[in-house]
Amino acid sequence: MAGKLDIQQGVVELQHGSGGRATATLLQELFLPAFANPILAAGNDQATLPQFQNRLAITTDSHVIYPLFFPGGNIGSLAVHGTINDLAVGGARPKHLAANFILEEGFPLADLQRIVNHMAEAAIDAGVTVVTGDTKVVERGKGDGVYITTTGVGILDSDTILGADRIRAGDAILVNGTLGDHGIAVMAARPDSGLVTELQSDSQSLHRLTAAMLQACPSIHCMRDPTRGGLAAALNELAHQARVGMRIEESHLPVTAEVRAACELLGFDPVNIANEGKLIAFCSQQHAPALLAAIREHPQGKEAAIIGTVVEDPSCKVSMRTRFGGTRLLEWKWGDPLPRIC
Amino acid sequence: MAGKLDIQQGVVELQHGSGGRATATLLQELFLPAFANPILAAGNDQATLPQFQNRLAITTDSHVIYPLFFPGGNIGSLAVHGTINDLAVGGARPKHLAANFILEEGFPLADLQRIVNHMAEAAIDAGVTVVTGDTKVVERGKGDGVYITTTGVGILDSDTILGADRIRAGDAILVNGTLGDHGIAVMAARPDSGLVTELQSDSQSLHRLTAAMLQACPSIHCMRDPTRGGLAAALNELAHQARVGMRIEESHLPVTAEVRAACELLGFDPVNIANEGKLIAFCSQQHAPALLAAIREHPQGKEAAIIGTVVEDPSCKVSMRTRFGGTRLLEWKWGDPLPRIC
Repeated sequence: MAGKLDIQQGVVELQHGSGGRATATLLQELFLPAFANPILAAGNDQATLPQFQNRLAITTDSHVIYPLFFPGGNIGSLAVHGTINDLAVGGARPKHLAANFILEEGFPLADLQRIVNHMAEAAIDAGVTVVTGDTKVVERGKGDGVYITTTGVGILDSDTILGADRIRAGDAILVNGTLGDHGIAVMAARPDSGLVTELQSDSQSLHRLTAAMLQACPSIHCMRDPTRGGLAAALNELAHQARVGMRIEESHLPVTAEVRAACELLGFDPVNIANEGKLIAFCSQQHAPALLAAIREHPQGKEAAIIGTVVEDPSCKVSMRTRFGGTRLLEWKWGDPLPRIC
Repeated sequence: MAGKLDIQQGVVELQHGSGGRATATLLQELFLPAFANPILAAGNDQATLPQFQNRLAITTDSHVIYPLFFPGGNIGSLAVHGTINDLAVGGARPKHLAANFILEEGFPLADLQRIVNHMAEAAIDAGVTVVTGDTKVVERGKGDGVYITTTGVGILDSDTILGADRIRAGDAILVNGTLGDHGIAVMAARPDSGLVTELQSDSQSLHRLTAAMLQACPSIHCMRDPTRGGLAAALNELAHQARVGMRIEESHLPVTAEVRAACELLGFDPVNIANEGKLIAFCSQQHAPALLAAIREHPQGKEAAIIGTVVEDPSCKVSMRTRFGGTRLLEWKWGDPLPRIC
């Protein structure tokens, strides 16, 4: 990993929270050495706890999205969906949430009530309960309305062991639908964006889809939700963890006309834009058609596609064959073009 | 509960994060109705999850303490101790932590490294591992250096069921040591406090003490750590949950000379000041001497004392017999005199 952290003189930069290489560097050089243990080192978005015969999974996510309300969701529903999805892509059935609120003095209680209600609705809809929580308040100007941290606990019903280390050269790479909807919808909701779009965030809980996928194809190797940093960050991170390369077909990537238009306008690429209701999955070529069929049968996977293949590559490059027939590197960007997207 | 929340017109106030009645009102009127479920309604600082034969406990705490570094600790060690203690007073053996960091752009990485190192040391010392985590960054002026949320998972080894609902009239009330050290030490560390003291925070993990207590006295009814709002807030909250009254003897309260002096100077009362290494325990009078002896035998309980008695009182009042022989109400204050103390 390039870009060594200057721990003596350096400061936290916005990009350290982007989900890109900057975040990975901060984790690798500052957090992981301090907390070193095998469960954390596994590098998954959720931890499997050995005390419970590997049947208990835990994951945690802080949400600092700006703005708090956006088309298709708000920080409350997002805080439920995001954490449920980290459990779901680990193969766990979400059961309980812990919820923490850091509130800024002066934040309207009516807005807090709306957020909490949406959170509760999302939890009920997903069949999970908020079993514990905490609330802190900071002075005006020391927060931004509300930050929510949700920690999820889930049960691993399936015997399938999922993880980056199970990805193999030759694997097919699948996605359950269109890319970049969340990032563009949130960006358009920012007062200064100048962007007008009908687009809604794809924020949703994916655990029913992942359960259907695991039932149809128990030999899935790995799943991941491409949030901050989008598809490109998720694929690059997995490629490094699995010590493989990946080849993506741009023409196979599901992208709505609205996202494509917004990206062209802004000079972005949909592969770098955050999603909150999407997952990527890896399985052998042999099982890929059945898995694709199972995803497409599900309401959350109608636009699913096989988007590429895992290849042997000790340099762990992710490349994309463009619609024009050329090939370009799907770069692991240092940051996210849109900070505070989740 | 008095002080109805004006959800339509009201805003978040600093006192809503104080651990006093303001916090309880926000929970009762806004959060609990939305997330209604029996585990949350139990009103403990940790949740026991039924899927695992009640052997799994989970708790969560956000830490927004100011300043980040103070005599006897910092936000990193505090974030470990605070969450471990919520598990410990629930009778659970802490096993794993999830750690979330909300970082402010511009925060020195060297300070972050120090905090993370102290956190890792506190975790190793307590025998817990940080198994998962998340890092977000917000713009300059939207945070205050670093906020840390820790979620803890523990195992309930003992068959003892602890909870406010097990407190009975006649129970003895015990504390393991001096009150108010944390709050006064942190306050003195604030640049504008004008307070000079040698005092250190009592921030420490109490799970070894609670294990020794449960072994010596398996019939403990309830334990709680008196953090935000101090002893008075913890006792009042428990009195309301248990529908009982409590009578405290001021002359039995362990308080250091430094805390007493600082409180006299500032017009505070040690019973309202936060602790981060103290617990209160309830047991029958019959078992109280053995429990007190067990606490005093432990390095974290040398100054333990029996401080009062639970009484029948449908109005749930907590009163204190003062050193001068009078009796006064140990008020459940609306807020904490010191915001952002944990």
